[in-house]
Amino acid sequence: MQFTLEDISDEEIARRRSVYEPLTDSVRQLIDAVIRTEVDDDVITQARTRIDELVADLRAEQMDGPYGVRYTPEFVGMPWGNAVVGLRNAIAPPLHTRHDGDEVSAEFTLGAAYEGPAGHVHGGICAMVLDHVLGEGASIDNVPCYTGTISVRYLRPTPLGPLTARASIVAREGRKKTVRGTLADAGGITVEAEGVFIEPRNWAGRMPRAADHYRPDVPD
Amino acid sequence: MQFTLEDISDEEIARRRSVYEPLTDSVRQLIDAVIRTEVDDDVITQARTRIDELVADLRAEQMDGPYGVRYTPEFVGMPWGNAVVGLRNAIAPPLHTRHDGDEVSAEFTLGAAYEGPAGHVHGGICAMVLDHVLGEGASIDNVPCYTGTISVRYLRPTPLGPLTARASIVAREGRKKTVRGTLADAGGITVEAEGVFIEPRNWAGRMPRAADHYRPDVPD
Repeated sequence: MQFTLEDISDEEIARRRSVYEPLTDSVRQLIDAVIRTEVDDDVITQARTRIDELVADLRAEQMDGPYGVRYTPEFVGMPWGNAVVGLRNAIAPPLHTRHDGDEVSAEFTLGAAYEGPAGHVHGGICAMVLDHVLGEGASIDNVPCYTGTISVRYLRPTPLGPLTARASIVAREGRKKTVRGTLADAGGITVEAEGVFIEPRNWAGRMPRAADHYRPDVPD
Repeated sequence: MQFTLEDISDEEIARRRSVYEPLTDSVRQLIDAVIRTEVDDDVITQARTRIDELVADLRAEQMDGPYGVRYTPEFVGMPWGNAVVGLRNAIAPPLHTRHDGDEVSAEFTLGAAYEGPAGHVHGGICAMVLDHVLGEGASIDNVPCYTGTISVRYLRPTPLGPLTARASIVAREGRKKTVRGTLADAGGITVEAEGVFIEPRNWAGRMPRAADHYRPDVPD
């Protein structure tokens, strides 16, 4: 389980968040607009040139590889590049998970960018969200886990729009945790999932709080 | 299973593809740059303003809802908004699936935007890709299917970089098809998946060729 220490203050984290979160939200709007736009070709072509200029400006200084999983001296997680919860990742809806007792939950809205069947969420996106929420549920006691297996059962198509995902641990056996979760719209549950998560043997480290379910690079 | 007819010629499809595909690829670069940039705050703030201007220009004329699943008079599928394969969807890697005999496969590369554990693909992204490839494998005989269940088994963490996904039908029983698939890097298989897919009862329609595995809105 690789975490990178960002030796910065809470104030600096708040400052960075205030700069990157709006930028990423604007890119999410752009993704949606590119799918749905009906403007003339010349506007599209100009838009592409303007985006390429933006990319060049942003890449003038950049980290070599991916963002990684970072944490602060106060051991607060900063998974800002994460594909599901990352505040700097425009692919992420993003999910803002809540921990209430034993349950992890998230309320979020999925638009055109998450479509599979017409007007509905891609089944793979449902699986992606549930994998993440179940993984976070497995680590709710701050002992990290890696995913062994996850099974997803589609009860009915999930419409695009506001959704809720929930997960909690239903059984423990040694280093093994079984977690169950659901995805639901206003009409009830659309997808169910169950996962088996394994704690690394001899886990001695600490893990950042919040969104801190990352699987170890080596099982144990 | 909802498909929308786009009554346009192959030439018009090729023209649209030549306009939208480069635009979407540029947005994919932007997503990566936003995760990895280290430029000063003022450049970030200006970038956000420029993106908002782009969004406004593209939204000047746009479709009301999501893209949907379209097909041509020649019954070629145009799932251009799809979250996994859509050429107008910057969230999609995108996957370009190949059908060889009974097998569906796709070679693709996942970068920083698909990260979960540091340097590795988010487990939910692995599940998303496998859900899609298995679904397409289930429909390889051009009879559409909806997903009943999918089980994903993580053998080891999947590194970011070039990957291959494969799927094929391993059993049929009435309207039920069992499909197995794998995700692999250069070192071999990292994730295995098995799914049960169901053909709609009394399916009388035709379905577009290619990326045509979309689940029906009503099972039967």
